[in-house]
Amino acid sequence: MPDHRPHVDGARVLRDLKTLRGIGVYKTGVHKPTFSEAHMRSLTWLAERLPEAGLTAEIDGIGNVLGTSAKPGPKLLAGSHLESQNYAGWLDGPLGVVYALEAARVINPDPNATGAVEVAAWCDEEGHFGHFLGSRSYVGAVSEDDIDAARDRSSGRTMREALRDAGLAGRARASVERGRHIGYLEAHIEQGSTLESGGLSIGVVTSIVGIWQYRITFEGEQNHAGTTRMAVRKDAGLALARFCVDIDDRFPSLCGPRTVWTTGRITLDPGAPSIIPGRAEMLFQIRDDDPRVIERLEDLLRGMAADVSAKGRCTVTMERLRTGAPAMMDAGFQHAIEAASAAFAGGKSIRMPSGAGHDAQILATIMPSGMLFVPSIGGISHHWSENTGDADIVTGAEVFVDACRRLLAR
Amino acid sequence: MPDHRPHVDGARVLRDLKTLRGIGVYKTGVHKPTFSEAHMRSLTWLAERLPEAGLTAEIDGIGNVLGTSAKPGPKLLAGSHLESQNYAGWLDGPLGVVYALEAARVINPDPNATGAVEVAAWCDEEGHFGHFLGSRSYVGAVSEDDIDAARDRSSGRTMREALRDAGLAGRARASVERGRHIGYLEAHIEQGSTLESGGLSIGVVTSIVGIWQYRITFEGEQNHAGTTRMAVRKDAGLALARFCVDIDDRFPSLCGPRTVWTTGRITLDPGAPSIIPGRAEMLFQIRDDDPRVIERLEDLLRGMAADVSAKGRCTVTMERLRTGAPAMMDAGFQHAIEAASAAFAGGKSIRMPSGAGHDAQILATIMPSGMLFVPSIGGISHHWSENTGDADIVTGAEVFVDACRRLLAR
Repeated sequence: MPDHRPHVDGARVLRDLKTLRGIGVYKTGVHKPTFSEAHMRSLTWLAERLPEAGLTAEIDGIGNVLGTSAKPGPKLLAGSHLESQNYAGWLDGPLGVVYALEAARVINPDPNATGAVEVAAWCDEEGHFGHFLGSRSYVGAVSEDDIDAARDRSSGRTMREALRDAGLAGRARASVERGRHIGYLEAHIEQGSTLESGGLSIGVVTSIVGIWQYRITFEGEQNHAGTTRMAVRKDAGLALARFCVDIDDRFPSLCGPRTVWTTGRITLDPGAPSIIPGRAEMLFQIRDDDPRVIERLEDLLRGMAADVSAKGRCTVTMERLRTGAPAMMDAGFQHAIEAASAAFAGGKSIRMPSGAGHDAQILATIMPSGMLFVPSIGGISHHWSENTGDADIVTGAEVFVDACRRLLAR
Repeated sequence: MPDHRPHVDGARVLRDLKTLRGIGVYKTGVHKPTFSEAHMRSLTWLAERLPEAGLTAEIDGIGNVLGTSAKPGPKLLAGSHLESQNYAGWLDGPLGVVYALEAARVINPDPNATGAVEVAAWCDEEGHFGHFLGSRSYVGAVSEDDIDAARDRSSGRTMREALRDAGLAGRARASVERGRHIGYLEAHIEQGSTLESGGLSIGVVTSIVGIWQYRITFEGEQNHAGTTRMAVRKDAGLALARFCVDIDDRFPSLCGPRTVWTTGRITLDPGAPSIIPGRAEMLFQIRDDDPRVIERLEDLLRGMAADVSAKGRCTVTMERLRTGAPAMMDAGFQHAIEAASAAFAGGKSIRMPSGAGHDAQILATIMPSGMLFVPSIGGISHHWSENTGDADIVTGAEVFVDACRRLLAR
């Protein structure tokens, strides 16, 4: 048993998570896009809880909620996000925020604990308007021009309009005070099945993979689906389908052990049943924590595209939309999480990279950062059926709060 | 030379076609969806021209324009349609209407000509609201319930609303008077490259292919594109792409010499770059004039779908949305077109099936029908760049009018 057992209130953690699910509920998940009424109510709910943890609450000009402490001693920043993907799960984001809140509630008033936990809910981690706009704003990587240009990817509404409607227009954006924090800790559901299938309780994140995203466009010839013989067609949709299959056949020989790739969207133009598509577009993503692997795969992809164009039926163009460097998690943080797991989760932890992007990768650019995962039932995520067992949620909270205490006590 | 050379006015035909292009022009084509303002103005334009050909004009309660003659003797019905696909070509439809108008202008006032040509512009051949609603209404195959249920496939607007806005609500729908016509003749651009590549002027249509259309749906498992390992994915989009490629690999061994098949639309659900598609859907179409070929291919398709489902990663369901029996063109009409081609196009004609659907297939269910094609430049159609050379347009008009005269004189 550790010297100072953190008095985590498991029932309170579960109750808070369920309260947040009640705001914008959809089936057993939530629909809480950035700056929606449900999202804003969630931010207010959090801001009202923070004083219970001895924190001063602020909702800044980009929708970040920050709770700061006047307590002397080291400060650890902890948090996650409160908006969701459309019609998605209830834990992706809120779990990390409620753990951070619980850590602050347990540690900050404790006279035996060193320092304080400060809480953050970063706005728009889910990327309705961009990529990690809230945490990137906090580290100084978002300009006013970026905000001027940002639009809701679903509705097309400008971010300025959304900020105005949310009552945030004109507020200052909070910026990190360099040197204030010993680092940043974030908890999240795994969103995969490694923990569940291994009978494990805690994932100790070693790195967050980089994401490379491409728009791949095929140009053929739009024509009538009844009168154009098969032999003379230049069907951009068929060329795209062949390309997807080729990727699936050829990537495995060059990828790393944990590389993943996904075609998430396909659009045929004009998209009518009686017209041969003259143009087709796919959004394609590769993730890995080794840039050399990405480089190899991107070379392969460009070669495949050139081959299709050389055959002359359709031309292929590739546009790189996003390049994400992988982020390494701090070794000391990994060690603290592992020690807390030994104390509160019977040591049932494993070190693993994160295949998903998280705000921790942004904070890692300016301070030591760490992440821990709890199991996801069936590995399901970004879907309303996403879930984690109550016992796993409570164990995760205990490990999280103990890890915070250990980091502050170093 | 024939006995009664029809005095086709080629300049007038070209001028009329260009006038119609001017109503709803888009680049060198038109954007004239059914019941759009441009479509309605085109119908009015035609109705105002019909009296010049001795015809009484009527726009009926479904948007058909009909010009009827009081002249004694046999009547030949001729026409096509005036609306277009979205952002499409200028000749698909108007060519056949202007040829019919020209035939009526030349033949009806001619005391040496037997009988009269009556003119029709059938509404919504392009299927914005359904399939051949105008011509099917005329032959008695559209109920009031069908109209209640019809919606614009682009905007979702109901057909009732569109009819009301077009000022057609409450008008009677015209019905065929059985026995009135010796048959129906329609001209159209080929929408393929057989005539152009063979240096030919006229296609004598033997049959109009049937269209079978399917919705094929793949169900997998929606999941996070970063955290779900490749080995455990159930990617519905990838299953769909493999299916498209399999169709392309396997259909050629079982299809007929002129079978065509097309995947015109693909939708991945939810369609986000960071989410593995849990559901994917394709609209798939097969066309042939031999129902036995279709049956063979449909069997193959169902077998392929069952194979995919049996492998267990994704399940496939196939729904047949549309079954179109092929329509045979009348032998006497084919002969008359061929004779007219010999007289006015140097005999440069070929018998060929139509891969596209046309109103003639609907009229063929109640009267002898025929069709002739003129060349399409580059075979391009259902695209704003669709075109036919002026000389070919005029030759087509001469053959069309002579064929009308021959049919009426039989």
